[in-house]
Parts: sequence; structure tokens; C-alpha cells
Amino acid sequence: MKAPELGITIGVYEHGKRNSIADLGVKVGHATLIEDEDIRTGVTVLLPPVNNPYREKLFASTFVMNGFSKPIGFVQVDELGYIETPIALTNTLSVYTVAKAMVMHMIEVNPDLKSVSPVVMECNDSYLNNIQKMAVKEEHYFEAVRKAKLDFKEGSVGAGTGMSAFEFKGGIGSSSRVVDVGGEKYKVASLVLANFGKREDLTIAGVPVGMELKGYPGRGLSSRGSISIVVATDAPLTARQLKRLAKRAILGLARTGGYAYHGSGDVVLAFSTAQRVPVDKEPHLMSFLPDNSLSRLFKATAEATEEAIINALLQARTVEGNGHVRYKLPVERVLEVMKKYRRLERD
Amino acid sequence: MKAPELGITIGVYEHGKRNSIADLGVKVGHATLIEDEDIRTGVTVLLPPVNNPYREKLFASTFVMNGFSKPIGFVQVDELGYIETPIALTNTLSVYTVAKAMVMHMIEVNPDLKSVSPVVMECNDSYLNNIQKMAVKEEHYFEAVRKAKLDFKEGSVGAGTGMSAFEFKGGIGSSSRVVDVGGEKYKVASLVLANFGKREDLTIAGVPVGMELKGYPGRGLSSRGSISIVVATDAPLTARQLKRLAKRAILGLARTGGYAYHGSGDVVLAFSTAQRVPVDKEPHLMSFLPDNSLSRLFKATAEATEEAIINALLQARTVEGNGHVRYKLPVERVLEVMKKYRRLERD
Amino acid sequence: MKAPELGITIGVYEHGKRNSIADLGVKVGHATLIEDEDIRTGVTVLLPPVNNPYREKLFASTFVMNGFSKPIGFVQVDELGYIETPIALTNTLSVYTVAKAMVMHMIEVNPDLKSVSPVVMECNDSYLNNIQKMAVKEEHYFEAVRKAKLDFKEGSVGAGTGMSAFEFKGGIGSSSRVVDVGGEKYKVASLVLANFGKREDLTIAGVPVGMELKGYPGRGLSSRGSISIVVATDAPLTARQLKRLAKRAILGLARTGGYAYHGSGDVVLAFSTAQRVPVDKEPHLMSFLPDNSLSRLFKATAEATEEAIINALLQARTVEGNGHVRYKLPVERVLEVMKKYRRLERD
Amino acid sequence: MKAPELGITIGVYEHGKRNSIADLGVKVGHATLIEDEDIRTGVTVLLPPVNNPYREKLFASTFVMNGFSKPIGFVQVDELGYIETPIALTNTLSVYTVAKAMVMHMIEVNPDLKSVSPVVMECNDSYLNNIQKMAVKEEHYFEAVRKAKLDFKEGSVGAGTGMSAFEFKGGIGSSSRVVDVGGEKYKVASLVLANFGKREDLTIAGVPVGMELKGYPGRGLSSRGSISIVVATDAPLTARQLKRLAKRAILGLARTGGYAYHGSGDVVLAFSTAQRVPVDKEPHLMSFLPDNSLSRLFKATAEATEEAIINALLQARTVEGNGHVRYKLPVERVLEVMKKYRRLERD
Repeated sequence: MKAPELGITIGVYEHGKRNSIADLGVKVGHATLIEDEDIRTGVTVLLPPVNNPYREKLFASTFVMNGFSKPIGFVQVDELGYIETPIALTNTLSVYTVAKAMVMHMIEVNPDLKSVSPVVMECNDSYLNNIQKMAVKEEHYFEAVRKAKLDFKEGSVGAGTGMSAFEFKGGIGSSSRVVDVGGEKYKVASLVLANFGKREDLTIAGVPVGMELKGYPGRGLSSRGSISIVVATDAPLTARQLKRLAKRAILGLARTGGYAYHGSGDVVLAFSTAQRVPVDKEPHLMSFLPDNSLSRLFKATAEATEEAIINALLQARTVEGNGHVRYKLPVERVLEVMKKYRRLERD
Repeated sequence: MKAPELGITIGVYEHGKRNSIADLGVKVGHATLIEDEDIRTGVTVLLPPVNNPYREKLFASTFVMNGFSKPIGFVQVDELGYIETPIALTNTLSVYTVAKAMVMHMIEVNPDLKSVSPVVMECNDSYLNNIQKMAVKEEHYFEAVRKAKLDFKEGSVGAGTGMSAFEFKGGIGSSSRVVDVGGEKYKVASLVLANFGKREDLTIAGVPVGMELKGYPGRGLSSRGSISIVVATDAPLTARQLKRLAKRAILGLARTGGYAYHGSGDVVLAFSTAQRVPVDKEPHLMSFLPDNSLSRLFKATAEATEEAIINALLQARTVEGNGHVRYKLPVERVLEVMKKYRRLERD
Repeated sequence: MKAPELGITIGVYEHGKRNSIADLGVKVGHATLIEDEDIRTGVTVLLPPVNNPYREKLFASTFVMNGFSKPIGFVQVDELGYIETPIALTNTLSVYTVAKAMVMHMIEVNPDLKSVSPVVMECNDSYLNNIQKMAVKEEHYFEAVRKAKLDFKEGSVGAGTGMSAFEFKGGIGSSSRVVDVGGEKYKVASLVLANFGKREDLTIAGVPVGMELKGYPGRGLSSRGSISIVVATDAPLTARQLKRLAKRAILGLARTGGYAYHGSGDVVLAFSTAQRVPVDKEPHLMSFLPDNSLSRLFKATAEATEEAIINALLQARTVEGNGHVRYKLPVERVLEVMKKYRRLERD
Repeated sequence: MKAPELGITIGVYEHGKRNSIADLGVKVGHATLIEDEDIRTGVTVLLPPVNNPYREKLFASTFVMNGFSKPIGFVQVDELGYIETPIALTNTLSVYTVAKAMVMHMIEVNPDLKSVSPVVMECNDSYLNNIQKMAVKEEHYFEAVRKAKLDFKEGSVGAGTGMSAFEFKGGIGSSSRVVDVGGEKYKVASLVLANFGKREDLTIAGVPVGMELKGYPGRGLSSRGSISIVVATDAPLTARQLKRLAKRAILGLARTGGYAYHGSGDVVLAFSTAQRVPVDKEPHLMSFLPDNSLSRLFKATAEATEEAIINALLQARTVEGNGHVRYKLPVERVLEVMKKYRRLERD
């Protein structure tokens, strides 16, 4: 269950129908690899709500909070202000395999393609996964694409299979918000691959849960924590404005106890589903929100990201692999702590 | 009183002796302008612990979270990686007057100077201050320099005189942390000019104080909130590393309820007091910490900044001016709220 | 006379009617200060073609090639993507006085203004000018505004009065280009404050003029060279696209023999006159060129900037001041050199 | 033959012994793929002069002039200021395969490696190469590594096999410079993968060679030109200083007629061979040049890059493939043009 269903309220805005990036029409698919004693990894793919992302480019931008990370495609997104492919998540050493598969995918759909800029982001799951084996193959990308749907799983699935957060089991989490801007409703959602944090830093809706769970078993820190964040909105924004949005995702990260430690590559990609980027030679009429109207979208981005991280923790299950075990967050204990600090809604 | 004296604990690291940027040897001086019904403004100057900042340049960097701001000198700091003057804070329209005074000051001390890059940061105090009158004169900069000392005031003084935060009285606040890195103790401190935030967003040590004080009188939002943050450390860091530090100040901001709203220019300057920047032509031996050792300094920066913002609120007093009144934070009420949420140490 | 009138052809595109930034409707005004033996400085103001720049904001961006420079306002331009004031040029230590005057100017025109972000750029004229005297006063900014016109002077005027380039007299220069994009004609122009370069580096239309004039009298290098470049276009571009344009100005600089030496603060501001930036809360329909159509505008920016620099040199006159003399470019000798290398059109 | 041997002098500084990046001890290896009618591509690998680049990290930085490019690893290089692998060049769609091979290589050499950030840069050779076939395999990376040597080939080899420049055959080129800084000799070298430019823009040592060769056969423009540039130096520089160096490579590009057209992804990676980056937890004494001493290194970077591009053209041979033919630069004609414009040294 996600935070709201457990009585944990993060932020003030209401969430969308699915409380996930699917509220923007983004489909999410996972390929989960659990093999032998030591393969606990996978691929997660986000399909933007267009028929052919290479032909229907979407405005986008990035923010790098901590560049100890290996995202593919950020240089071009920042220059041209758009994405032209799906977005994939996987483990650190597999981004290249997945990016290659994405190129093959785009060629398949666009037989005349000569250049394309895949977007792949990563975290390091080497605590639970034998990352050197590079178990992720091109086929796993295609499997994730095939399985993509609006009603997707979160937690220890896909790219999240082997990830850890706050020395508990981490992985995939998502959340959305709906805000009113000038009489119009816009949605913002965040999907995270959460793999960062020290136990004692974990903060849920302001409550120092991590300090209370310091003694809970299963500690053991990988120095290779990270978080990759994808923000989507249907507000009509320019790439410059989407960079502003991307930066606010980090405010949500901070509120969960993220300190962007040296080894934690914390990166954000934000895109808007509102309009296709024109690619011919003539001036195009397009619609954009003025910057004056962005404040609610900023807060919504922070809130959705904060909750997405907590949702990843709440939905992940215990995973053993590669000689380590990572316990799932003890949800009942957490709820007791929330209650103790008077932050549980249902009581 | 600052947070620790009230039993409010922010973060886990211990603070320095003065719990302020003075722990780095930085002297702080204020010129406070309270004139007529409508002048509530001032200048705050930070003097780095060197005899002549123009000759003894210090490694420095900046981070711009939200560039709706008018900082002076950031372009050069980022290119050359150093500061060569004191650092001043004032109101938005007075940065130019203060920068000019700083040039005069540097010429006075360095009669052969032909070029210098002052560093001045600002927030907009037009809620309590008739900012168009540009009441700050060159002499006020010099007054602040003269008054600079280790044992400086915080709250509604100097540049903080007319500032608001979370729809309470804001202003100047500072805090420090001491961390152990590889057996060595290093200090990090933050000094903020806090002038941002919506009432309901205020969060103190994770507690939703702002939500609890929604009904408290004195609301009224200026859309022109901002925060200027100065981070100092005695850890020997390069400019690139100081940029990493500067970014972490924003994590502290986020934890107080800062959302970097559109109109809030949120900027950071970070510098190291550890070494002088060589300016001649030969290679110089210098000492730097490896990036692997920065994580504690990152967290310390976030903690010191989070507490500095709360300290600004705790120490500011009610100010009336320019047709508005801004109440000081009702500290007793706040402590009750903290107690209700079980976050007051002393109980 | 400018380059084309002398038979010197720079680039391949045709220039606009005035071959200056006035082709975009930008008016330029100078206040020239020649006082005593040692004051040789001034202010140059560019008025964008709008009635009230604070109300009619224009899309804009910046590029910093070498940030050993003190431009005012770049942080905000980059965040919000617009300018909201005139643009002024002056000497390094006078940017603050001029920025303050610009604030006063904007308040005069907009009595309810509480915040504004002036844009002022600079070079260091301390070779010919006693820069420490800060001879530029607020009134000189206003004088330059009053005198602004389409038919403006170039060379040793306004901010260019005391500037040097390639150890000859430098100063203000401008040039424009007209290009066809998708059947539509667009203009790009550059105005420079040229104050950089070593004699032997000077290159005119590919000809090593500087090497040929190495022995010409008047050498003497200030280590404080710089160039400030303003690019204007009537092509409808976003801020992101204008940053791409701003970068290309540096390609023109390179072709004149600019090497962006350590001490040379080389910065660019680019803006579009095509549309006003909306500042309310609703989505706005705006027209933008796709990035696919920018290549000619890029080349035109480089060409206009290359010629603007040469035009500054060709139009400056000999100036003596502050114990130094800076000779004007010996134009007849230059033409002989151009002829020797077969690059003079008229022969 | 390279430019100097033909009597073409670019810049004023002397070149190193090999006039290539090998002067820094960097070994370069190529795998050249010429298969069937349509495969004309390859891989070029640069091995920094260390035994194990993962253990002996070198200070590095990047500059993105035009981010319409797919470089791998730039985000981490910019954050951490170092490279930890060889540097590879290949075609646009093969960067992922090559990056994966580089990961395998690094694991082979460092069996405990859990995370590594490969650096791979690219240009698009789809004019002469059937890029969709992704003919480059992991083995080609290893082949290039095995073949790496100081005495390497330039022109239509390795990654340069299918590249075009100025509508002639382009590819790999390199050049070096030696400069005196404070009595010490330092080297700077550039290696380029040149694949950009319109015929008429080609400029050699200031001479408009491209205009003179407009009518020469073999025109045909791909809109997908680009250039990837690697700069190496033995000057002891910080990452921040190396970014300054990287930027100056673009000044050399500009002088050859590079306009960074929209479709031309122009990116630079710069590194210093002088010192290993410390990676433990204690402060380290390191030696760095002050910024005041960088000007000659800046000019040397521009010169080496300008000549490297010309050297690529001078050494490439005619290549036919994928239904197109790209002629080599007609060197004798070029020399006649140079002579006509009086820029040939030997006459």
C-alpha cells in the first residue's frame, strides 16, 4: 500500500486517480531478473503517452544534484530541450546495454532513423546483485516495453529489484499531485528508483523514523547509493521551465532524509506531455504557462517526489541476494512510530 | 535564543562553540536602518578571517537554486573559484550601492587595485520597507564593516531588519556544525538572510509548525520572498568541492519548508577559510580533501543551514513598517507544538 | 568607416540597412567622459525597441566564455529567460553606479516597481582611464539614455572611450546580418565593447594583420582585457535557443584573434525583439522557430560579432590618457596588408 | 603529411616531438571496419599514460559547445573532476556497445570494481556508413586497445573511417604545442574526430580554402556533422581549470570554419596527466598552477585544436561507402590556394 492508504499524509495537495506517473498517461513496464543466488536486478521502462516518441518529441530538461551518476542522454536533452525515446532505468553497469536496446527499438519503429538519443538512468544494486555479471540483456529492455501498462507494480520490481534505501529494501515508487493553476487543473507526477540513504536519516512526513529504527536488524551500508527521478507533468512548459521543476524534485528528496552524500548520484529528468516539439523549419504557435504560475507546480513536484520515495519503501519486499539480505521496511513498526509522533491520519 | 537552547534539536552533529559562522573566524557586522514610518532595512557584512581579502583570496563557489535573484559577483566566483572581498547582504535595490561601497573599501586598503569583484547578495524587504527610497547608502556598508565582530546579533538586524519568513518576522540567522573527517575535526557554518516561505509550509525539526499556526494573526504574503545563504568551512576544499557543499545548503532549506517558489531567489555562496589562493605564475603545493571524505561535510552543511533558518525566526522580533506589521514567531506556542509532536528535547 | 565600406568582407551574409544593432530597432546612446588628464571613460546604453522594458520583457539568455567579468543581472536572465531593462555598458568599477541609475530609471517609469534586475556589462579601461576615480555618475547613465538613437556613433565613444583592443584603440562596434529562414527574413546583430587581445593575434577576415603590425608603435598590454557582447535578433526564439545563439558570438570573437586569455572576461547577452514575455498566470500562445532552423542564425551571429569587433577597431580614434596613449588602427596600413594577402574586395 | 610538413603554419607556438597527443604519453589505437559496400566505421581508443586508469584517476573536465551529441560519462566527469577509464571515440549509435566493452575491460583489470564511468564520444558517420547495422562490436574496442601505440595513424582510420569534414573526407587528427609557463615547459595536445562543416566554410590558417574549392566535386552535406575533441596537458591543473582549457578548444574550431551548426554536436573533454586524483579520506598535498599562468595554455589549446582539425583533413583518404563517396582534400590544390593568399611558408 502507498502512503495515503496507510494514513500517512505527505504534503497538502491531492493526488491523481492512480497516485502515480500513470496519471499522466505514462505506461511503465518491468523486467525483473531473479536468477541464481546473485542476480537481483532488472529494467524499468517508462513509455510517454505518444505513439512514436521519436516523431513526437516532448519538451524535457534535467537537473543533476550529484553527478556521481551515469545517466545516458542528459547532454542532448539539455541542449535541445526534448526527449525522443522512452526512458529506462536499470543498474549502473547495464545502462549501455539498455541504451543499445533502446536504439534498436527506435530503429525498428523508425526505419529511416540515423541518430537518436536514448535516455537511461541508473542506480547501483551491487549490494544484492552481482553487478559485474551484467545480467541485463537487450531482450530485457524489450520485455519491459511489452509489459508496460498504466497499472504497474512498484517496490522490488524491474530496475528496483536489487535496490536499497535507508538500509531497507528500496526500488521503484511513484506518486502524483493535482494542482489548480489559473483555474486549470494540472498534474505532476514523480517516479523514482530509490537506492540511497543511511538508516538514521529516514524521515517520513517529518517523523524521524530512521532514528527510531536504528536498532532494527539488517543494517549495512553500500557506499554506492543513488536516486534517479523522473518527473512528468501535463502543464505546458518550456525546457527552461522544466529545469526549474526538475530542481524542485530535490526538495522532496531532502524531506525524506536524502543528503546527496558523495557517492549518491542524484539526478532528475522532467518532461511535459502537453505538446509535441516542432522539428521542421517554420515558426510554430505553442502554448506555455508564464513562470508566474509555476509555484504550485514546484511544490507539487516536491511533494510527489517525497511521497514517491516513501512509496518505494512501503511497497518493497525483503530480498536476499549476492550474500546480503535487505529487509523490507517494517511497516507496522513505522506506523507505530508515526502514531507516537502524532502524524498518522487515521488515528 | 537559538534552537538548541530552547530544546529544539536539528540534525545529529554537534555545533561549534558559538553555533554561528563566527566559529570559522568570520566577523559579522550590521548597519540597521529604522527611520520614519517606512524605512526598515540595512546591511550585513561578513568579514572572512584574513587581513586583506583582496590579497588573501579564499576558494569559493556558488549554487543558484532559483535565480530570481540579483547577487553581485557570482559569475567571477564561478570562473575563478575564489572570493576577494568581504560578503555583504542587503535589500534587492541596494545591492549596487553596497557593491560600490565595497569597491571603495577595497581601493582604500589596496591603493593599486584596478579591478575587484565584490560579492553582495540580497532579499526583498518591500513588505516592511519602502524599498524604492533606497535608504541604504555607502556609509552604511562602512558602518557594518566597522561594527563587525565574532559576537554578532541575529534576527531583525542589518540586512535582516525588514525581512519576513513564513509570514513571520525573518532576518539573519546562523548555525555551525563540527564533524570528524578522517580523524580531523572540521567546521561548517551557515549564515542566512531568510525572507521566504508560506506560513503553512514552516517545518521545524520535522514538525508541521506552520500548519498549526495557520490561524495565528499577521498573515500576508509578499510574492517576493527569497533566501541568501553563505556557507563557510575550514575544510581544505577546491572550488569544485565547494560547489558540492553549496548545493547541500538547499537540502537544509527544504527541511524547513522551503519550496523555492517562483518568486523566491534562492542562492548560496560557499567558501573555505583553509588556504589562500595563489595568484602568481608558479605551481603551488596545496592541500585538499578527497571527494570521498565529503559526505559528513555535506550533511553538516544541510544541518547548519536548516538550523540557521530556524534561528533567524527564533531571534527576530516583531517589526512594523511601511504600513505592515510582521509578528515575531510566537516561540512559546511553537514549543507547545513541538511538544505535542514529541520533538522537544527538554521535556 | 565600417569594414564593408573599406572593401573588407567578413562572412558571406548580407548586412542590414544600418549594419548595426539599430537594424533591430535598438537605440544606442553614449555618455563620453573626457576630463583632465586621466578620465577617459563613459557609459553606453542600448534601448530595446519597446516602450517600457519593465512591462514589455523580452526573451533573453547569456553565455559566459570567460567569467573573469562583473556583469550585473546574468543570474536572473538565465533563470527567467528575459531582460526587463535597457542594457548598459561601462567600465569595470562603474557597473554598480550604472546599475543603480538604471533602477532609478525603471522606478521613474514604473512607480509601483519593487524589484527589477538591471543588466550592465563592463570592460576594464584602466590603461587610459583612472578607473579608481569612478568618474561615471548616475547622471551619465541618464545622459546616455536621452541621447540614444538609431543613428549612433561607434569607436571611442561612451563605454568605449578608454578601451583598447589588440594594443590599438578599441571600443564600441556593431554589425548586422540578414538571413533567410524558411522563406522568412530574420536579422541578427551584434554590438561589442571590445577591450581585449594581443597585437600579434589580430586577424581581419583571416589575414594575420597583427603579425604584420607587430612593429607598429604603441604597444603595451594591459592584462585586463575583456569583451562584452550584446546580440539581438528579431527571430522568435526561446531563452534556451538564445543561449545557443549567444554561444556562437564566441566563434566570431575567435576569428578576430580572440583567445579568451585568463584575464579577459568574455561574456555575451542575447535577446529577441520578436515577442513580449507573458507575466500573468494563464497559458499563452507564442510563436517559436524550431531548433532545426537555427543554423543560419548561428552563422549570422558569428559573422556579425566578428565584424562588430573589426568595426570597433576601424572606427576608434587615437586616445591619450592616464599616462598612456593608444593609437587608432592604422587603417591604410591595414588595407595594404589585406591587399598583400589578396583579401581586399575593391582591388 | 601534417600541416607543418606541408609548409602550413597554424599559430605561433612550436609543436611537440610527435605533434600529436602522443607527446603527452597518450597511446592511441584504432579498429577500422571496412566491410561489404556499406560498413565504413570503427573505434579509436586513447590510453592515458597510467598503468590502470581506474586506480590512477586523472583530473578532467568537459565543455559542451553544442549538446546535439551523445557523449558517455560527461555528467560524472563534471561532478568529480576526473576520468577513470580510457577514452573512446566511435559512431553515434555505437557508443553504448563501446562503453559496455570499456566496462568489461575495466572489470578485467580491476576484479573488485562495482561502479565505473566510461568516457565515449561520437560523431555520425551515416553518410558513408550504414550506421543502423551497428557493426561495431565489443571486440573492436578491445582490438583498438591492443593496437594502441604512440606512433598512431590519423585520417580515415578507427572512428574516423567514415567521417566527413567540410564535405571532404574527415576523421582523426592530432597536434600538440609546447609552451613556457613561469620557466617551465608544458605540453598541450588535441585529438579530434572531425565530422562537421560546410565546404565553403573551410578556413586553413586564415585562408578561405573552402570558398576556392566550392566547385570541386563531391559535395553533399549530411546534416549530422559533429566534432569530438580530446585535450590533454601535462600542466598540473584542477578540474575547474581544465574546463577553462576545454572551452578554448572551441576557439580553434572556430578558426577552421566551424560554426557549431544546429545539428553539429561539438563537445570537448580535457584532462591532465600531471597528477593522480587522491581517492581516500585524508587531505592530500597537490601542486597546481595559478590561473594567472593559464593564458599561454589557453592559446596553445586553441592552436593545437585548429591544427588537429586541419591535420585530419590533410591525412584522410578518399572513402566510398553506403552509396556515397567522400573525396580526400585535394592537397595540391589547397597548397596552391594557400600560395595565392601568401600563406604557404615554404614559398
